[in-house]
Amino acid sequence: MTAPLEAAALVHDVTRAAYQQGARLVTCLYEDPAMIRTRFDLAGDSSLDYAPGWMSQGVSQALEGGAARLFIAGPYPDLLNGIPPQKVLRAHTSAARASSQEMRFTSDSLINWSVVPFVTESWARMVFPDLVPAEAVLRLWEAVFEVTRADCPDPVGAWSRHTSSLNSRREILQARRFDTLHFHDGRTDLRIGLVEGHRWVGGSTRGANGVDCVCNIPSEELFTCPHKDRADGRVFLSKPLAIAGDLVDDVCIEFRDGLAVSIRARKGQGVLENLLSGNEASRRLGEIALVPNSSPVSARGFLFYSALLDENAASHFAFGQSYGACLISARSTEKSGVNEAPIHIDCMFGTAEMDVDGISAEGRGEAILRAGEFVL
Amino acid sequence: MTAPLEAAALVHDVTRAAYQQGARLVTCLYEDPAMIRTRFDLAGDSSLDYAPGWMSQGVSQALEGGAARLFIAGPYPDLLNGIPPQKVLRAHTSAARASSQEMRFTSDSLINWSVVPFVTESWARMVFPDLVPAEAVLRLWEAVFEVTRADCPDPVGAWSRHTSSLNSRREILQARRFDTLHFHDGRTDLRIGLVEGHRWVGGSTRGANGVDCVCNIPSEELFTCPHKDRADGRVFLSKPLAIAGDLVDDVCIEFRDGLAVSIRARKGQGVLENLLSGNEASRRLGEIALVPNSSPVSARGFLFYSALLDENAASHFAFGQSYGACLISARSTEKSGVNEAPIHIDCMFGTAEMDVDGISAEGRGEAILRAGEFVL
Repeated sequence: MTAPLEAAALVHDVTRAAYQQGARLVTCLYEDPAMIRTRFDLAGDSSLDYAPGWMSQGVSQALEGGAARLFIAGPYPDLLNGIPPQKVLRAHTSAARASSQEMRFTSDSLINWSVVPFVTESWARMVFPDLVPAEAVLRLWEAVFEVTRADCPDPVGAWSRHTSSLNSRREILQARRFDTLHFHDGRTDLRIGLVEGHRWVGGSTRGANGVDCVCNIPSEELFTCPHKDRADGRVFLSKPLAIAGDLVDDVCIEFRDGLAVSIRARKGQGVLENLLSGNEASRRLGEIALVPNSSPVSARGFLFYSALLDENAASHFAFGQSYGACLISARSTEKSGVNEAPIHIDCMFGTAEMDVDGISAEGRGEAILRAGEFVL
Repeated sequence: MTAPLEAAALVHDVTRAAYQQGARLVTCLYEDPAMIRTRFDLAGDSSLDYAPGWMSQGVSQALEGGAARLFIAGPYPDLLNGIPPQKVLRAHTSAARASSQEMRFTSDSLINWSVVPFVTESWARMVFPDLVPAEAVLRLWEAVFEVTRADCPDPVGAWSRHTSSLNSRREILQARRFDTLHFHDGRTDLRIGLVEGHRWVGGSTRGANGVDCVCNIPSEELFTCPHKDRADGRVFLSKPLAIAGDLVDDVCIEFRDGLAVSIRARKGQGVLENLLSGNEASRRLGEIALVPNSSPVSARGFLFYSALLDENAASHFAFGQSYGACLISARSTEKSGVNEAPIHIDCMFGTAEMDVDGISAEGRGEAILRAGEFVL
């Protein structure tokens, strides 16, 4: 597992549980945010291109050998305050290249894995800036426990029922083989075409190793692969985007032939424009996800400033990279409309008023969501 | 670098210093003693044979790529209290096998590396059982700072001078090519033959990568490779041995043809016998080291319960495995008298009264130490 130093007590709980369940060896790769910050403060710019692959190749070897992978994700939104974004991008790009082999094990679900949130003080201070840190941490844990069903009398049972329900709906969507999804709520009116060999993902995932797992906790979404050239219409985002400490809000985007041709935001427009300016593929879609308005994250009604949680509050699309798991065949290529890009940015636009229709290749429509809730 | 979680603040200092000196990337593999203990408590016995090589192979790859290696060693003497020794041995044996490739980088000094002590609460409580933990930690740090010259006005200069002096004496010893060392102080009377291609090691080490380093801090010893069949006489240990939480004290050992044929201890005889009972090579010598009585560790005058420090308090030999670095040629084999064994246990026997003579192949004697101090 990977976890920030701050999460050692949780790591110890997970370790005990894993050995009690029969694990042969539990290893934690602790992440140290202070070391990351120090590198940006003191290392030469050119050294940021240096990302040796030894650690990632070691982990890949463990995964090939049958290891399960747990990411205890502690956001540090203020960690890189004041560091020039191009330095961060530079380090991020080289690190991503060095770990591409390892990332395939999870992105293509070759193994069983999961990402779970951990409340860091840095994160809690951002969500509750007016509270003293200890109180902020406590309040954010309460919210995380609620939306992850950890405060249920029987969390494992609750997840089992929730996952079954998502799985059933996923199979229905898969069987329909919709050509296009149509989102409309009076303001937003957006049609998103799906690639022909799209696969719906969500609920539990069966890894190539045969083990079922919930890859993200919480997970309220069913998502698949949009066609990179087939988004058309206008969409109003329903949640702010938290991007590296900046907030982008009140966003309206127009799509034509899959490309975001106009982006207007009352707040943080430059941040979003900058993020999407790398190349054209960054302005095309890599994911489309359905989330009911009644999801616990939505019901909680505040911004977590963390995609892991916030993307489960509303239907959303993502600019940028698509997921291999959202394709029936690994042979689908860019030519068939699968987007390949250096970023993946979730944008929530679902509302309590939103209707979603699935449209078949023959042009027949069928209701999927009505007033924000699944009806299919 | 490798460090216990408890050492994070020191890790951060080292990280800053390394980046200031031009390091491209500083990585810390944090060790979590609680996870080690949990495994022994909860994992099945047979799982202790499981030691995958992925982490060690990853580190080997980093070292091949030119990384330096720092071990921040925090002893946890009470960590495995109550765990059956055969379980510990089982896990130790499989872990050693899995990391043998990595260990060669340091044991054969293919790279620049160092081991430095870190005062854990567990260690401080063992050394000062009558103090409250915070006070014990403070007192032990004071002792560590003193014996590592860290409390000098100019620690780097002090190490530079100390290392130069050790290096000069090492070259003198090397030039003599002694056949035998004779230790005598009125009680101890021991002759230890050296292998023909022995190399004296100590002071700074030039790694195969051309970088000079001090492999252990503190380091007061000059050591080389004894002949496994050529120790004869009687030796009284001058310091207790701390072995996995047990103390072995008042030890007298008799050697014949390199083998410890008699071991008597007033305290903990069984512990020592048990440790050496694995095979015959465990009762033969793998290292002989000269330490002057005036060394700071000796002057401090108490037992640190840690070989990294205590072995620098007095001349010592080690039962068991020899060091590749103590041979001029890698082609020296067991046949030439080099010991190979699963253990390496340092035994301090130097005293303030000890004389050491070097004896040439022709039988000519020359004084090396007189009354505990170097005269050569």
